[in-house]
Amino acid sequence: MKIVIAPDSFKESLTALEVAKAIQTGFSRIFPNADYELVPMADGGEGSVQSLIDATNGNLQKISVKSPLVNQVEAFFGLSGDKKTAFIEMAAASGLHLVPNEQRNPLITTSYGTGELIKAALNCGVEKILLGIGGSATNDGGVGMLQALGVKFLNAKKQEIDFGDEALSQIQQIDLSGLDKRLSQVAFEVACDVDNPLCGEQGASAIFGPQKGATPEMVETLDNALRHFAEQAQTQLGVEIADKAGAGAAGGMGGGLLLLPNVTLRSGVNIIIETTHLAEKIADADLVITGEGRMDAQSIAGKTPIGVAKIAKQFNKPVIAIAGSLREDYPVVYQHGIDAVFPIIRQLNSLEETLKLGKENLISASENVARVWKMATAK
Amino acid sequence: MKIVIAPDSFKESLTALEVAKAIQTGFSRIFPNADYELVPMADGGEGSVQSLIDATNGNLQKISVKSPLVNQVEAFFGLSGDKKTAFIEMAAASGLHLVPNEQRNPLITTSYGTGELIKAALNCGVEKILLGIGGSATNDGGVGMLQALGVKFLNAKKQEIDFGDEALSQIQQIDLSGLDKRLSQVAFEVACDVDNPLCGEQGASAIFGPQKGATPEMVETLDNALRHFAEQAQTQLGVEIADKAGAGAAGGMGGGLLLLPNVTLRSGVNIIIETTHLAEKIADADLVITGEGRMDAQSIAGKTPIGVAKIAKQFNKPVIAIAGSLREDYPVVYQHGIDAVFPIIRQLNSLEETLKLGKENLISASENVARVWKMATAK
Repeated sequence: MKIVIAPDSFKESLTALEVAKAIQTGFSRIFPNADYELVPMADGGEGSVQSLIDATNGNLQKISVKSPLVNQVEAFFGLSGDKKTAFIEMAAASGLHLVPNEQRNPLITTSYGTGELIKAALNCGVEKILLGIGGSATNDGGVGMLQALGVKFLNAKKQEIDFGDEALSQIQQIDLSGLDKRLSQVAFEVACDVDNPLCGEQGASAIFGPQKGATPEMVETLDNALRHFAEQAQTQLGVEIADKAGAGAAGGMGGGLLLLPNVTLRSGVNIIIETTHLAEKIADADLVITGEGRMDAQSIAGKTPIGVAKIAKQFNKPVIAIAGSLREDYPVVYQHGIDAVFPIIRQLNSLEETLKLGKENLISASENVARVWKMATAK
Repeated sequence: MKIVIAPDSFKESLTALEVAKAIQTGFSRIFPNADYELVPMADGGEGSVQSLIDATNGNLQKISVKSPLVNQVEAFFGLSGDKKTAFIEMAAASGLHLVPNEQRNPLITTSYGTGELIKAALNCGVEKILLGIGGSATNDGGVGMLQALGVKFLNAKKQEIDFGDEALSQIQQIDLSGLDKRLSQVAFEVACDVDNPLCGEQGASAIFGPQKGATPEMVETLDNALRHFAEQAQTQLGVEIADKAGAGAAGGMGGGLLLLPNVTLRSGVNIIIETTHLAEKIADADLVITGEGRMDAQSIAGKTPIGVAKIAKQFNKPVIAIAGSLREDYPVVYQHGIDAVFPIIRQLNSLEETLKLGKENLISASENVARVWKMATAK
């Protein structure tokens, strides 16, 4: 019997690899001789770099970059085992968690550090870059990132503009001549699961600005600045980004990235499914097990288990999910390829204690699912 | 496919019948055409009367009796659908919950009310009485119960002694002549899952006295009084109760009952298994599902799911348990016939909220177990 175990991480508790190993431990108690294939998964969000490192036997690279408030901060990216692919999470350099609550101000925060991570990846000689852009503190249309990669944004006085969204309104010239040439040589895939446009009512500023500290008045300023940037990109470079689906992701990072060559915006989980060769691994499996920290109706929107289930269903494989917890609205996952779901909580406890028991509870739940599987197949 | 669903109640949340129905609801979503046999179970403790009423289509009888402190209190017993068997819980008349904390005093509490329940059952013309004796507030050796049934306990002045353990030391004469004659005509089974003797270090006073309010000094008084009672029973009636296994149950109720004709002390869950004809129902089943509110290592000590599993294993049937919660030490149940266990908690919540969600969580867990069963049997 071949069992593919392809879960997401349990946030704040276990990495995807740890989750996969715990599920294997539980199943092995009942099926010690099964063939287990562990495929740590992710959806492009937090934990994706770790999962991809684990899935490819890669390693973690640490590097100091500019934070959203232009302090130096230690960030990281991943390199695949074959060193051909770099894995980057924008949040590692430009994440909201790097800005204290009271200093959150998307008018001034910059994505420059993410550009530095990309540059560091290029320095490693990779052929491919996978970038997850969730959780950013910025609304600068990715301009900081572009600056770190050599693009010059000049104002009316031919001076480089300041960092942050507000300064975008001063852009008079975009000079791509200094752009890192190596970018034309790499494939660049961006994990992007929202389809918001750069500007307007559904744009980056209106939808995601408030959670980054924007007041209603600020949102207008932010949006106007992004629109000016988009107009300049359109007139000077002929690149249309204002209304492009996904351009509004991560404070307009989705839009700024479109100024680079070879960039494609894709569903995060699909990028990771491809990178981990999940389909090949599932093709000859008897059972697929996935999971995530919390399963609910939102799980159907580009989250890992549903992505895994979709692949499994192409091969008509049974899919069981094991989840840290289940919200009331979870049953919709049944319509998206998940055949059964089990929460792992064994008793009421504090959140802290429950997270601490995560591994043990996961092993226990997995063992019991395996027990039922064994009994039922013996019938 | 025939599925027998034989759970205990989930204390403070659902009766055994409600648990069984919820499990059926979950399973029916996946196996709408299965043949379901619902057997509400119990272990002789709280909820046993309700389970037996539900299992036999019986009904509840309410009656006012003397509480442990000799106030009038509304108690109850059950009658089977065929009216041939009465189901009694001692706690309904003589339970610790009927005595406020600050008034708990096993020197004076009486089991008289339980005797009144037995008498009321006899008035219904039953052929059999099943009595569960857990949770009592008393330590009177069942003397109060015997008094209610017509036995006279007289002191040196030929006066009837007072209620409570302390007065037992005054017994000079036990007069059975007034004992309700109908007791010789009924079978009388007592659900008793402890094997403590009446007196001594492992006796009723030493082991169970403290939880009923006894101080260390009180324990000695209590024990001496019980010993005097046992000596009187021995010399006057020739009945040995001091060292009999189980005589120490329920403040010596187990011992006092031995003065009645036709009384047998048995494991509670076995009495209920027999009364519900569980074995016959399981004999042709494909799957047995049981459950209880909390499963832990103690579950192997005469609790319902293990009793059910034992019967199921005689017929080599798979047994799945569904539990409100699981303690860390639960895995020992695997060695006692439970093949798989699932907790039902889906997310962290207050205890109150969790109890409120009991039914919904139980349905959900059951559905998912059924989903795995279906997939695996299809392999």
